[in-house]
Amino acid sequence: MDSDFGIPRELSPLQQLRSQYQPQLPPCLQGTTVRVEFGDGTTVAKAGDAHIIARAFPHTLGQPLAHFLRATAKVPDAQIITEHPAIRVGIVFSGRQAPGGHNVIWGLYEALKVHNAKNTLLGFLGGSEGLFAQKALEITDDVLQTYKNQGGFDLLGRTKDQIRTTEQVNAALKACTDLKLDGLVIIGGVTSNTDAAHLAEFFAEAKCSTKVVGVPVTINGDLKNQFVEANVGFDTICKVNSQLISNVCTDALSAEKYYYFVRLMGRKHSHVALECTLQSHPNMVILGEEVTASKLTIFDITKQICDAVQARAGQDKNHGVILIPEGIVESIPELYALLKEIHGLLKEGVHADNISTKLSPWSSALFEFLPPFIKKQLLLHPESDDSAQLSQIETEKLLAYLVETEMNKRTKEGTYKGKKFNAICHFFGYQARGSLPSKFDCDYAYVLGHICYHILAAGLNGYMATVTNLKSPVNKWKCGAAPMTAMMTVKRWSQNCGSTSIGRPAIHPATVDLKGKAYELLRQNEQKFLMEDMYRNPGPVQYDGPGADVKAVTLCVEDQDYMGRIKKLQEYLDQVRTLVKPGCSQDVLKAALSVMASVTDVLSTISSSSTSGQQFA
Amino acid sequence: MDSDFGIPRELSPLQQLRSQYQPQLPPCLQGTTVRVEFGDGTTVAKAGDAHIIARAFPHTLGQPLAHFLRATAKVPDAQIITEHPAIRVGIVFSGRQAPGGHNVIWGLYEALKVHNAKNTLLGFLGGSEGLFAQKALEITDDVLQTYKNQGGFDLLGRTKDQIRTTEQVNAALKACTDLKLDGLVIIGGVTSNTDAAHLAEFFAEAKCSTKVVGVPVTINGDLKNQFVEANVGFDTICKVNSQLISNVCTDALSAEKYYYFVRLMGRKHSHVALECTLQSHPNMVILGEEVTASKLTIFDITKQICDAVQARAGQDKNHGVILIPEGIVESIPELYALLKEIHGLLKEGVHADNISTKLSPWSSALFEFLPPFIKKQLLLHPESDDSAQLSQIETEKLLAYLVETEMNKRTKEGTYKGKKFNAICHFFGYQARGSLPSKFDCDYAYVLGHICYHILAAGLNGYMATVTNLKSPVNKWKCGAAPMTAMMTVKRWSQNCGSTSIGRPAIHPATVDLKGKAYELLRQNEQKFLMEDMYRNPGPVQYDGPGADVKAVTLCVEDQDYMGRIKKLQEYLDQVRTLVKPGCSQDVLKAALSVMASVTDVLSTISSSSTSGQQFA
Repeated sequence: MDSDFGIPRELSPLQQLRSQYQPQLPPCLQGTTVRVEFGDGTTVAKAGDAHIIARAFPHTLGQPLAHFLRATAKVPDAQIITEHPAIRVGIVFSGRQAPGGHNVIWGLYEALKVHNAKNTLLGFLGGSEGLFAQKALEITDDVLQTYKNQGGFDLLGRTKDQIRTTEQVNAALKACTDLKLDGLVIIGGVTSNTDAAHLAEFFAEAKCSTKVVGVPVTINGDLKNQFVEANVGFDTICKVNSQLISNVCTDALSAEKYYYFVRLMGRKHSHVALECTLQSHPNMVILGEEVTASKLTIFDITKQICDAVQARAGQDKNHGVILIPEGIVESIPELYALLKEIHGLLKEGVHADNISTKLSPWSSALFEFLPPFIKKQLLLHPESDDSAQLSQIETEKLLAYLVETEMNKRTKEGTYKGKKFNAICHFFGYQARGSLPSKFDCDYAYVLGHICYHILAAGLNGYMATVTNLKSPVNKWKCGAAPMTAMMTVKRWSQNCGSTSIGRPAIHPATVDLKGKAYELLRQNEQKFLMEDMYRNPGPVQYDGPGADVKAVTLCVEDQDYMGRIKKLQEYLDQVRTLVKPGCSQDVLKAALSVMASVTDVLSTISSSSTSGQQFA
Repeated sequence: MDSDFGIPRELSPLQQLRSQYQPQLPPCLQGTTVRVEFGDGTTVAKAGDAHIIARAFPHTLGQPLAHFLRATAKVPDAQIITEHPAIRVGIVFSGRQAPGGHNVIWGLYEALKVHNAKNTLLGFLGGSEGLFAQKALEITDDVLQTYKNQGGFDLLGRTKDQIRTTEQVNAALKACTDLKLDGLVIIGGVTSNTDAAHLAEFFAEAKCSTKVVGVPVTINGDLKNQFVEANVGFDTICKVNSQLISNVCTDALSAEKYYYFVRLMGRKHSHVALECTLQSHPNMVILGEEVTASKLTIFDITKQICDAVQARAGQDKNHGVILIPEGIVESIPELYALLKEIHGLLKEGVHADNISTKLSPWSSALFEFLPPFIKKQLLLHPESDDSAQLSQIETEKLLAYLVETEMNKRTKEGTYKGKKFNAICHFFGYQARGSLPSKFDCDYAYVLGHICYHILAAGLNGYMATVTNLKSPVNKWKCGAAPMTAMMTVKRWSQNCGSTSIGRPAIHPATVDLKGKAYELLRQNEQKFLMEDMYRNPGPVQYDGPGADVKAVTLCVEDQDYMGRIKKLQEYLDQVRTLVKPGCSQDVLKAALSVMASVTDVLSTISSSSTSGQQFA
């Protein structure tokens, strides 16, 4: 299985050129001396979850944020790490492949070698399975040679993104102990990083000296929270998909006879679809978050699209492009309920052929209404995270089919008098995932790799590497680390008999923020996108010239830099402490007390009311 | 329908950058003085077709080749065109959209304006339908502004690629007369250029003064013959598709659990598939020409793929990528026969639902054996050129289905002991067609546009613009024009009662040359491609840096430049004439006669035997 991993291979001229690209490091990571400044201990996003999370993470909850600063930075409390004893680190691709993953390995390797030539980096072959089986390849310059700045996860490969069962965590523990690892770096998305956090706790409990570090690498862009602005791979995926979407738009406009229904990979939430819409301006996008917020049924969505087709036909436009996130099938209430029932029956061991007879009357009616190809796809076994096999369910074909049926009906009834509706369906998924990473993803991943080293050098366990202020040039990037427990929330389901079921604490995927600036940008333009064919082609990813430094729209429009603002707050608090030192005047103290009482009051009120309203829940 | 054509639009940063790119011109087209040198009158590729073609083209057959040379070129017979009276030219997108099409218009516009500011260029809106309806837009600098070096045909749009029926050619004649056009430039592939040739003849017969010029623009790359080395759009399409194929290869290698079946747009023949294979090195490609040559049935192909899957499983490889040209369905003998029967019945007016009962026993058996989705697709009405709706027939899914069935059978029988076979299917078509054109396609199309002007300035009718020596840099390109009649062949079908049916003379699509160097390159590597996963990622199309000048592999490996070699031959003949002028010695004359007699003899023999063996038939 693993015989071919890490072997040198023939590169195309562009691949060769890319393999010679040296990503920049922000000033704080240059040189061999780095300061670590610790912030206050972290809390969790939802106050109501705190006790559940505390119970699951007695050892790793409440750890402080860490900021990595230049050796010359003037921060009194920062700690300079000068000792760099030789360490052994393991790294594993746990999540699904995302462009840039290889550069995390390269960045970590570089940092290890710069600080102590005796440091060792072991790459586990074939993902988590390789970790359990202790199959590892020592990373060397030679091994990395043809993988620098290249796409895919084929340097090490991957299997399933799961390190969760007792058997699995024990195997991981044994591997880290047997291989005498000081650190284990886990690369992946929400699922992998949740597993990493639990593994860190498990290792701490077991007094295993291996520190676990997570890295946010996922094309879905859904590992987003106060500490994490972006995920490695998202930039590339959105650029590649946007190019293809724009090509389809141009095609639609050239021939003026087809509606293209394009489904996009990206799991449950619609980050990829939103970003691609803002880059390429298709006529319509159905965001899962909107469907959920408005509780739209499949018939509502069909009607929405049909009305759009009809409005466009009124302007003599018989073509268009509609984006559909793959996760939408789980956002549509009745389809989600149907899927849940099917998955429940599959778990009980009911054979797929017999499921239709065991469904509830409502679900059965819906199921029987659906065309055969979709029925078959809905009956597939769920994924390891209990979600449906989204990449295999052709929602774009279902919608095209329903829209066509409805348009034919409207034609017969005489309410639609336009040309015959013709749809062409596409799924943009696997063809983008293995792409050469964009410059942004190359840089971001490489820097994260470096940060992993500094997390381990500082002896931290259960942290995720973070870079903030990403919309600025690399030399303004801020590097840090955040405890993964601070990103956790807990899900609750009401059961039939009125009781509530509580999920395992996890880093849940972020939804598209319907109050955020990126969504606002979409809303401002959606009518123009729909009617005016403002198609825009970002073109193929460029590596040279001015086009090479373009960044994701959603990254650039949001005011992120939460970490920077947390630091700013600390500075204010420190200033108050300095200004109001013992010996200050009565008046100053009185003013300080009055103002601070009011500040505390306001914040307490907001905090308690925001418990349930967090976007990254 | 046409309200939006030619309107300015918002461009992305890369589109803006590209809109400022100025393609180079080869030296012969620089400045305002160009020499035209005429070669000998042309013949047709198959001697046996000559009399049929002659009957169809009394006015336009046998015209000489034209070469455009620098004003300073030392060619005694060349004619310098110094008079440039104002002319009116129409241009129409007749074929399917291909990246670069807009640059033909731009190039022609530039040439017109450089030679006489009063020249007028009219673009027909909505393709051939716009020509018939005389809906035209005057091309100006403003109109072109946001379409220079951009993909798609959306500046003017297109409808059907047909100017063929009596009604259609009469409408075209009326349009050209009414609009007082001196020239009509038709942009498209084999079908459009065949129509252009017939239209030129029809205009000549009707004593219409409009000269018709064809331009080879098609993503299929099948308008290839002695005079035409490449088609506008092919380079871009193959690069975009190769990138996506390589991404899928990287993905396959990262997860090691899927076989990807990728169908490629490209019509009947397999040029796109061959080029993409040579660029990206997938494990397998099924070329239509191989299927035809070896008379492979669908079961043979299934077995071939299954054997490959089994051999790879023996090396612990449970993933792979297989390319399937969309035209393959017409190359497989029994499927082609079935399609022919279905199309015949559809033509007779039989409803699709009743066709299965009217098929011959053989075809009926095959039809019933096929899975339902394919049945439905095979029943679609044929295209305007009588071929099946190739883009709608999911051959990749059919093959994946048959391979899966066979692998399951082998597993049950115990002959296959590998992991379960899993397939994922893709169709790469529409998402590449609207792409930003590569630098090559930008340059090539722009130069062809210029040549169109010179063809018209020289008063030529029924010619196609040609550029040869394309694999060299632009400053070595050779510009010319070839009579379209010289590219014609005639198809013959044996009828049931022993008689032969003869087709209309046409520029037929070239097949992949199984004796050519490009195919040889594939054959040399196919075993390695199959077993060793030598995946190679050409990456996204680049516009800056060293990667921007990469050209198609099939273009570079073949010794083309037929036009250059024809010119070389003329030079030899001229030299002989000079050396053996009256007054030369008896010995020289004797030697010349002896050698020339032998040359003539050899060539006569070869010519008569090659009548039926031409590759571009």
